[in-house]
Amino acid sequence: MIGGGQLARMMIPPAVELGVDIRVLQEAEGMSARLAASGVGDYRDLGAVLAFAETVDVVTFDHEHVPQSILRELVARGIPVHPGPDALLYAQDKIQMRAKLGDLGLPVPDWAAVETSGELAAFLDDHGGRAVVKTARGGYDGKGVRLVSDASGADDWFLALGENGRGGALLVEELVSFRRELAQLVARRPSGEVVAWPVVETVQRDGVCAEVIAPAPGSAGRLAQVASDIAHRIADGLGVTGVLAVELFETTDGRVLVNELAMRPHNSGHWSIEGAVTNQFEQHLRAVLDLPLGAATAREDWSVMVNILGGPSEGTVQDRYPAALAAHPEAKFHGYGKAPRPGRKVGHVTVCGDDLDDIAYRARSAAAFFEG
Amino acid sequence: MIGGGQLARMMIPPAVELGVDIRVLQEAEGMSARLAASGVGDYRDLGAVLAFAETVDVVTFDHEHVPQSILRELVARGIPVHPGPDALLYAQDKIQMRAKLGDLGLPVPDWAAVETSGELAAFLDDHGGRAVVKTARGGYDGKGVRLVSDASGADDWFLALGENGRGGALLVEELVSFRRELAQLVARRPSGEVVAWPVVETVQRDGVCAEVIAPAPGSAGRLAQVASDIAHRIADGLGVTGVLAVELFETTDGRVLVNELAMRPHNSGHWSIEGAVTNQFEQHLRAVLDLPLGAATAREDWSVMVNILGGPSEGTVQDRYPAALAAHPEAKFHGYGKAPRPGRKVGHVTVCGDDLDDIAYRARSAAAFFEG
Repeated sequence: MIGGGQLARMMIPPAVELGVDIRVLQEAEGMSARLAASGVGDYRDLGAVLAFAETVDVVTFDHEHVPQSILRELVARGIPVHPGPDALLYAQDKIQMRAKLGDLGLPVPDWAAVETSGELAAFLDDHGGRAVVKTARGGYDGKGVRLVSDASGADDWFLALGENGRGGALLVEELVSFRRELAQLVARRPSGEVVAWPVVETVQRDGVCAEVIAPAPGSAGRLAQVASDIAHRIADGLGVTGVLAVELFETTDGRVLVNELAMRPHNSGHWSIEGAVTNQFEQHLRAVLDLPLGAATAREDWSVMVNILGGPSEGTVQDRYPAALAAHPEAKFHGYGKAPRPGRKVGHVTVCGDDLDDIAYRARSAAAFFEG
Repeated sequence: MIGGGQLARMMIPPAVELGVDIRVLQEAEGMSARLAASGVGDYRDLGAVLAFAETVDVVTFDHEHVPQSILRELVARGIPVHPGPDALLYAQDKIQMRAKLGDLGLPVPDWAAVETSGELAAFLDDHGGRAVVKTARGGYDGKGVRLVSDASGADDWFLALGENGRGGALLVEELVSFRRELAQLVARRPSGEVVAWPVVETVQRDGVCAEVIAPAPGSAGRLAQVASDIAHRIADGLGVTGVLAVELFETTDGRVLVNELAMRPHNSGHWSIEGAVTNQFEQHLRAVLDLPLGAATAREDWSVMVNILGGPSEGTVQDRYPAALAAHPEAKFHGYGKAPRPGRKVGHVTVCGDDLDDIAYRARSAAAFFEG
């Protein structure tokens, strides 16, 4: 795995269980996935990535930021890379993603690629004076996303695009009126097999995932089918290998629109560690190794995952364990081995059971032990 | 953890999930728990054990074979050791164990410590001419256990005891007429908290655990209470910290007798990885760190664990994954990263569900992919 964050860390347990040797190229010493790190290197440095890649059988990722030029060099040298650069492009560039999903006939918000404030003004005029502007590359967890109601509202980003010498456009999208946000995860093998988890509801705070309910309440019928079909079509249409996370809007007028894509395990799938027969990290490993995929069915009626955001104001996540574990013997606690910092994802808690209100209360209460 | 076998390996996933740093002193390069190994050393070498122990906050074990003299030296130097030497003694020496359980008033088979074939003859005379002889120390997986029907049947072991210069006795026990074998696992914190998993049925072949059914069929009522009470009393009476496995006979005349003890995660608890809210490896970590214990309730009606014994006659466990995983998407496969060898435990398979006959069939079928 290239990248040593918590997604790489959470790949270690299923690798150990299946008997797969896992190696991580971490960005610095002491990253979250340090136990499996075989070296430190910059994923933007071809030499560092190549030296790492030549020691493994297949390369996969903790994040989508490895440059296309490096990905293509690995492929040219015959190193298996999953997901491959042709697929990853659509997780790296939101404008390319929007265009491709349009080509595939998938439901997306109205959008445009705009290069000037004049073009942005025109889009605003056509969409009630408000829109969402996104940088095409590099955004995550609410970064690089902005609500604008004035044509000058993205001037700093236009300026930055001009200054970086590469030019380019911003993505502008209609402000979707949504009931809630959903996420549909699937995994796909190189051979084409696709397996879907139940669609989940995600609750965001300040642009960051705070909580996930699996399955999404009220999704047992048609909604599950619609979401799963969308993700299947994207996985096949983009040739994704590994886990594909499709963030969705369920609109107030009953449509399901594609918001964002990620081609790796995703925060909205952490519930599956306890909640599904095969969790997203094991499934990603199976997929990138082209092994048969496991069942992705839910093990209990409901699972609720609550992120630990920021963490304790003093000390570490572990310092709060005596109180938290005593209060919640039923909860599953996950610490990412990261120092607390405001807004940072430093762990999560999952509770599974048959009473959604009860387990949601328990999961939130358990996570609250790590705040303040 | 001292010892790099599969029990240490299976401790890695919950350590990673909880955010606990785990280090392993492995006996040689490339052991099953190699990912977490921080060094190679002989657990019978005080210097090697001390050098390792000084780098960690608490010492625990993959096996019970670390000599008492070394354990006591660690304790004397203020290094937390869990379980401690006073408790481990009873997992190291079966005669001490039998005597202690007798003192505690726990139900055990008739037994004696015998130093000569004459004493063995007397025991045989009193017990219908047949008995089980065990070496007090060093046996596992059926090694060091022998059925005898003649007073000369243990002469080689008496001879070996004499030759080792330390003398000592063999343990002789009545041949118990049992319906089946059970195992009761509990975990205990230094502070005294004890949590029990459901009692399980274990099926042995050639003295080695082949299969575990959790919970033991028909154990929902009184039997579960009897087994749990026995294990609680042993954990408290011996001052065990960590997981205690109590192997039990359910006799044909309706008694429950203690057969063997282990003070570490145990093969009869592997089902708990998927089958219990808190698995034995996570619970052992919590216990030795004196963290509150998690719920040990079963997550589904039934779990069946089948060992992969020996493994493929050619190649590795992983070579059989394409066929096995395709046939059994519902099964959880565990490979220990060990080379196949006749009789060796190289992995296991667990299936959970509500139809015992069905999941047992599935688990056995899935494990069979790794034979031949």
